[in-house]
Amino acid sequence: MMIIKIGGGAAINLNGIVTDLKGLSEPFIIVHGANALRDELAAALGREKRVITSVSGYSSVFSDESALDVMMMAYSGLRNKRLVELCQQNGINAIGLSGLDGRLIRGRRNKGIRVKENGKFLILRDFSGKPQSINSDLINLLLENGYVPVLTVPILDERNIAINSENDDIIAVMQATLKADKIIQFIEAPGYLKDPDDAQSVLANITQQELLSWEEQSKGRMKRKIHALRKLFEAAPTRVIIADGRTEHPLLDALNGSGTVVE
Amino acid sequence: MMIIKIGGGAAINLNGIVTDLKGLSEPFIIVHGANALRDELAAALGREKRVITSVSGYSSVFSDESALDVMMMAYSGLRNKRLVELCQQNGINAIGLSGLDGRLIRGRRNKGIRVKENGKFLILRDFSGKPQSINSDLINLLLENGYVPVLTVPILDERNIAINSENDDIIAVMQATLKADKIIQFIEAPGYLKDPDDAQSVLANITQQELLSWEEQSKGRMKRKIHALRKLFEAAPTRVIIADGRTEHPLLDALNGSGTVVE
Repeated sequence: MMIIKIGGGAAINLNGIVTDLKGLSEPFIIVHGANALRDELAAALGREKRVITSVSGYSSVFSDESALDVMMMAYSGLRNKRLVELCQQNGINAIGLSGLDGRLIRGRRNKGIRVKENGKFLILRDFSGKPQSINSDLINLLLENGYVPVLTVPILDERNIAINSENDDIIAVMQATLKADKIIQFIEAPGYLKDPDDAQSVLANITQQELLSWEEQSKGRMKRKIHALRKLFEAAPTRVIIADGRTEHPLLDALNGSGTVVE
Repeated sequence: MMIIKIGGGAAINLNGIVTDLKGLSEPFIIVHGANALRDELAAALGREKRVITSVSGYSSVFSDESALDVMMMAYSGLRNKRLVELCQQNGINAIGLSGLDGRLIRGRRNKGIRVKENGKFLILRDFSGKPQSINSDLINLLLENGYVPVLTVPILDERNIAINSENDDIIAVMQATLKADKIIQFIEAPGYLKDPDDAQSVLANITQQELLSWEEQSKGRMKRKIHALRKLFEAAPTRVIIADGRTEHPLLDALNGSGTVVE
């Protein structure tokens, strides 16, 4: 079983990924983002996203109710349905779902994020949180009946409220139950870069043991991503390929050795 | 089995409908619109909808690619996911799906609509069409496993392209397979009005035989609705209640005799 994570960058070649998926013989599920689309929509609506950085150095999007509306439109609406349409055009019988549907992804809402603004410490609370569990019965029910789940945010909190969550964290939680033997993450870079400003600095391999030191050296969103990777490997052994989602055949390239292999 | 159709008007009391549904003992599915939300979103994005009227007198929304994007955001995105969230908060394990998902609703794209513009006859072709069949295996699979399908547009055409379609037509096609014994349609009026401008002119009952004459007397969208009702009764005998979706308890009121009963 394979988990295909498709980042939400504007340059990701969705068509190439889905064309490659058509030839896959093993069962798979897709988890996708839509951040470029969300940003574009929010800008067009005059509702720019607000990014906050916690005192401990992690950056995240501040999701008020209006931001969550935009997320539903961009992620569960436009991107999810256009991706399902693309799958259907390639003979993949996709079913697009958010974490709310069938209580597919449940989580706990954040108590609040400690930030420093104008020299003062504040606690900001929004509609975001951490995933805790997935409804693997539903995923297996769909797979067993020939459907390919295409999943995205939002997820459902402990009081059945829709909240935003990071796809990297969602995949780490999924892995605890689904125990995928391969996880491919498509991003807008040739792999994990030693130097974020140098596209030539791709690391071909990272061992599970090295993740902690990479997490400590990284900043912002990359720090979060590596942290989630560590959690993922704690959940169940697997092989993660961080691959370029912008090539003509992103999946074939990834399976043929491009990108960064973490195992 | 009951089909609950929720119109997309701004004054529909979604909370009241879902609260009432909580107490329902028989299985049901929901089909919903989101036209007020779509219009609002399109206006905010500067993409106003275009309504065209065919030479034969039927009005419909002209759906270009951009209009379909807006539809996915408003219908399958924001409205569908907020409605699923509301169901979950009321203990109803809803799964929101468009007609694309799992090839749930298939149709045929319109060849084009004959219109008269500035004295000239033109054929306009858009991303819209008529539903032809539904994947009742998927609906039954979900119902049998305790999930409540919450369905909306778009649907999938014969070439796997996403197209807009009328919910009234979709329900008529569903009825051929699902054979629901009751269909409740929530609208922004107390029922079917003899005189559209007089809220007191509710017809308590319409027989199947009377539908043709009401279709001939009606105009625009109402003409389409009555036409779809006729098709629905041709598909399988049922009891349709056209009810006010704006009251405190829309479903209880409908089941207790308010609105217009067609049978």
